[in-house]
Amino acid sequence: MLFSPAITRLVDVFRRLPGIGPKTALRLVFFVLSMEKEEVEEMARALVDAKRRVKHCARCRNLTEQDICSVCRDERRDQSLLCVVQEPRDMMVIEKTGQFKGLYFILHGALSPVEGFGPEELKIPDLLQLMKTGGVKEVIIATNPNVEGDATAFYIAGAARPLGIMVSRIGFGLPVGGDLEYADELTMTRALEGRREI
Amino acid sequence: MLFSPAITRLVDVFRRLPGIGPKTALRLVFFVLSMEKEEVEEMARALVDAKRRVKHCARCRNLTEQDICSVCRDERRDQSLLCVVQEPRDMMVIEKTGQFKGLYFILHGALSPVEGFGPEELKIPDLLQLMKTGGVKEVIIATNPNVEGDATAFYIAGAARPLGIMVSRIGFGLPVGGDLEYADELTMTRALEGRREI
Repeated sequence: MLFSPAITRLVDVFRRLPGIGPKTALRLVFFVLSMEKEEVEEMARALVDAKRRVKHCARCRNLTEQDICSVCRDERRDQSLLCVVQEPRDMMVIEKTGQFKGLYFILHGALSPVEGFGPEELKIPDLLQLMKTGGVKEVIIATNPNVEGDATAFYIAGAARPLGIMVSRIGFGLPVGGDLEYADELTMTRALEGRREI
Repeated sequence: MLFSPAITRLVDVFRRLPGIGPKTALRLVFFVLSMEKEEVEEMARALVDAKRRVKHCARCRNLTEQDICSVCRDERRDQSLLCVVQEPRDMMVIEKTGQFKGLYFILHGALSPVEGFGPEELKIPDLLQLMKTGGVKEVIIATNPNVEGDATAFYIAGAARPLGIMVSRIGFGLPVGGDLEYADELTMTRALEGRREI
C-alpha cells in the first residue's frame, strides 16, 4: 500500500461528495495536507457547525438557522403568491432574477415511485395546509422539466385547484441566447406548445 | 442575504480547495447538509486526523504516518537507484507502472525564483546528503516538462555529476496512443530529440 490509512480514509470521505472521483479526491487530499493545521481545523469546524446550525424553515423549508427564514419573515413579500421548487438551489436561481416577490415552498425532492419518494416524503400535506390557511391565491410550480418534475407538478396542481387557487407552471422553451439549430426535439416541442402571440 | 452565515462560511471554505468554484462549492454545501450528522462529523474528523497524523518521511519526504515510509523500508527495493519527483502524486504515477524498483525523493515543488522556491525550500541539500551517503549510483529525474521542472532537473544534475552519480531524465515525446496530428510543436521537438534507433 502506497498511502497511509489516514490518507486513504480522507480520500474515501471526499469521494462521497457529488462529482468527486478518485483522482479529484486524491488531489483534494494532497491540497488539504499542504494547508496549515489551523486552516484544516477551521474547515472541519465549518462542516460540523453548518450541519448542526442549519435546519429547515418551519414555513417554506428553506435552509435557515432560525425557525422562520428571512424570506418568509420579509413582510414586503406577497403572501398570496407561492412558488414551489424542488431544491434550495432552485429557489436561489429564481431569487437571482429579482422578478419574483412572493414566497416559496421547497419540496426537497420530486415524486419518484422508484426512489420511494411519495407525497408524504415531500411534505406535500404541509404544502396543502399552507395553501388552505396561508391566504395563497396563486401557485407557480417550478419543478424540473423531467418525468419526476412533471408528475410532481400535476399532483400539486390537482390538489390546489379544488381550493380555488390559480396554478401555473414556469414556461419551457429555448434558452435565451441559445441556438435553434442545437435544440433537442423535446425542448423544441415545448417551445412550440408555449408559443405566445407577438 | 439568502443564506445563513454557517452556509456562507462553509461555501467559502470549500472554495479554497483547488478546482472548486462558487457553484460547485454551493452544490457541495447542499450535499453536506443533506448528509447524516454522524457522516458530517466523520468527514470533519477525517480531515483533522489526516492533517495531524500524516507527515513527511525522514528519508524521501513521501507522505506517511511513520518516521520512515513503507517504500523506504522495503528492503527488496534497489537502494542505489533514486528517482526525484516534484509531488507525492508523481511518485504514485511511477509506482503504478510497476517498472521502477528503486527509491524516491520528493521535492514538494520545483525551482521557481518568481514564487521564491530556491534549493533550500525544496530541501535539495537533504537530497545531496542522501546522494553522498546513501549509496546512490543512479538518479532518474522525473520533474515536469516545463520551465521550473527543467531548471530543477539541471540544478540537480549539476550537483549529482561531481559525485560520480549517473544522472538521467525521463523521456519526453508523443504519449502512447496519441495522434501525431494533434502534437504541439514543443512535444514534437522533444520527440525528435528523443528518437531511438529501431
